[in-house]
Formats: sequence, C-alpha cells, structure tokens
Amino acid sequence: MTPDSLASAYRAYLDCLNRQDWPRLGDFVDDSVTHNDRPLGLAGYRAMLEQDYRDIPDLRFTIEWLMCEAPVVASRLVFTCTPRGRFMGLEVNGRTVTFREHVFYRWQAGRILEVRSVIDKAAIEAQL
Amino acid sequence: MTPDSLASAYRAYLDCLNRQDWPRLGDFVDDSVTHNDRPLGLAGYRAMLEQDYRDIPDLRFTIEWLMCEAPVVASRLVFTCTPRGRFMGLEVNGRTVTFREHVFYRWQAGRILEVRSVIDKAAIEAQL
Repeated sequence: MTPDSLASAYRAYLDCLNRQDWPRLGDFVDDSVTHNDRPLGLAGYRAMLEQDYRDIPDLRFTIEWLMCEAPVVASRLVFTCTPRGRFMGLEVNGRTVTFREHVFYRWQAGRILEVRSVIDKAAIEAQL
Repeated sequence: MTPDSLASAYRAYLDCLNRQDWPRLGDFVDDSVTHNDRPLGLAGYRAMLEQDYRDIPDLRFTIEWLMCEAPVVASRLVFTCTPRGRFMGLEVNGRTVTFREHVFYRWQAGRILEVRSVIDKAAIEAQL
C-alpha cells in the first residue's frame, strides 16, 4: 500500500468506527487482530469497541497527527467525550474530558493486524 | 531531511540522552522546544531530563517502533527501569517496571521543535 492508500484506508476505518458500522469492521480489521498483545480477533475487537460506545455514547475518533508508511500507521487521536461512569479506573461519571491516544497500527493485506495503543490517562486525571 | 537522515538524527538524540551528554543536547533540540504544549525551551527541556535521571537513575531510552517522515518522527519507546520514589503520581518506590512511551516529534532545521508524548501510566499501575 502507498502512503496515500494507507491513509485513505485508515480514514475509512475511523469513519466506520464513528458510524458504529460494525458489520463493515471486517473490511478494515483482520480476523486475527491483536490489541496491546491481547489476541482479540475481529469478534473481540468489535466487542471492545461496542463496549467503548456503551461506556462513552458520544465517543468520536478525530485525527490530530497522522503518519503512514506501509505497513504501519501512527496516529495521534483526540477525544472530547463524556464517559458515563468509570473510565480507565477513574470516576469520570458524566464529566466531559479531552484526551489523546497515540496509536500504532500494523497492517497486513489491507487490514489492521496489530494495534499498539497508549491513552493519556494522566491528562484525564488532571481534569477531574 | 530524508527518512534515513531523520532516523539517524533521532537515534543520535536518544544516544545523547542515554549518555546524559547534556552539553550536546542543543545539537538535537531547538532553543524554543515545547513538550506537550509547555514552552520549556532548551534549558527547561534539559532540566526536565536531568530531573528524570535523578528520579530514575537507570533510565534508558530504547526504540521498539520508529517511523520517520520529515518533519515528523513517531516512536514507540520501551523502558525497563526503577524509579526511586513516586513516578507519575504512583508509589513505585524502587520497584522495577516496564512501560512504553508513544511520542511524536516535529523537527525544524535539523532540531526537535515540538514533542507530543503519552506514557502508558495504566501499564505501570498494573505492575504495582
């Protein structure tokens, strides 16, 4: 994949998440996907995302910085959202918070095979 | 800068940190550097790093994943180290912990002008 085609595929993946279009998730995510070394597979990855939206109904993925160099995408995402209850072990309880996620994705044959994510928990704590 | 020259410069920057060669830091870091939006400047950035080494004498920067596309470097760093006391508000107190930092650096004229860093605090908590 060229940098441009990888960027297009990644943006389409985020659009899929933002639409909560779970039947299409397999267009972007490999059956054997791992997330921070956990072998979730596509079904487990979908379940994780569905739970994220139950916990944070106004969740929305927005790119701040993006780098694409096959087979890897590196992305700085920003979220301004309102977790209903506990989030990352923190009592957010309906407050609106802004935080970043820095995430690397390794792609294979047009789909995401490996996700390495770090969420800025300290930034959330500082807002509570 | 080409991807290769940027990667070389970034590796030389990490070598400088790992040697604690503070007089050379200005070869890699701009006088006006910011860190997560804080306008530290070179002196403040050096002071932050010197404090990091006082807090964590066995600190060592090791690359796991690296992407270079001028003017940005994206890096997944891994640390196995032994903070003496509190670290990121956590009572680590001399335990050895392993964690990652995902960090984006924007370069200008051969030096780092902007750093956007997220440290995996949740991973450290899980080890305490």
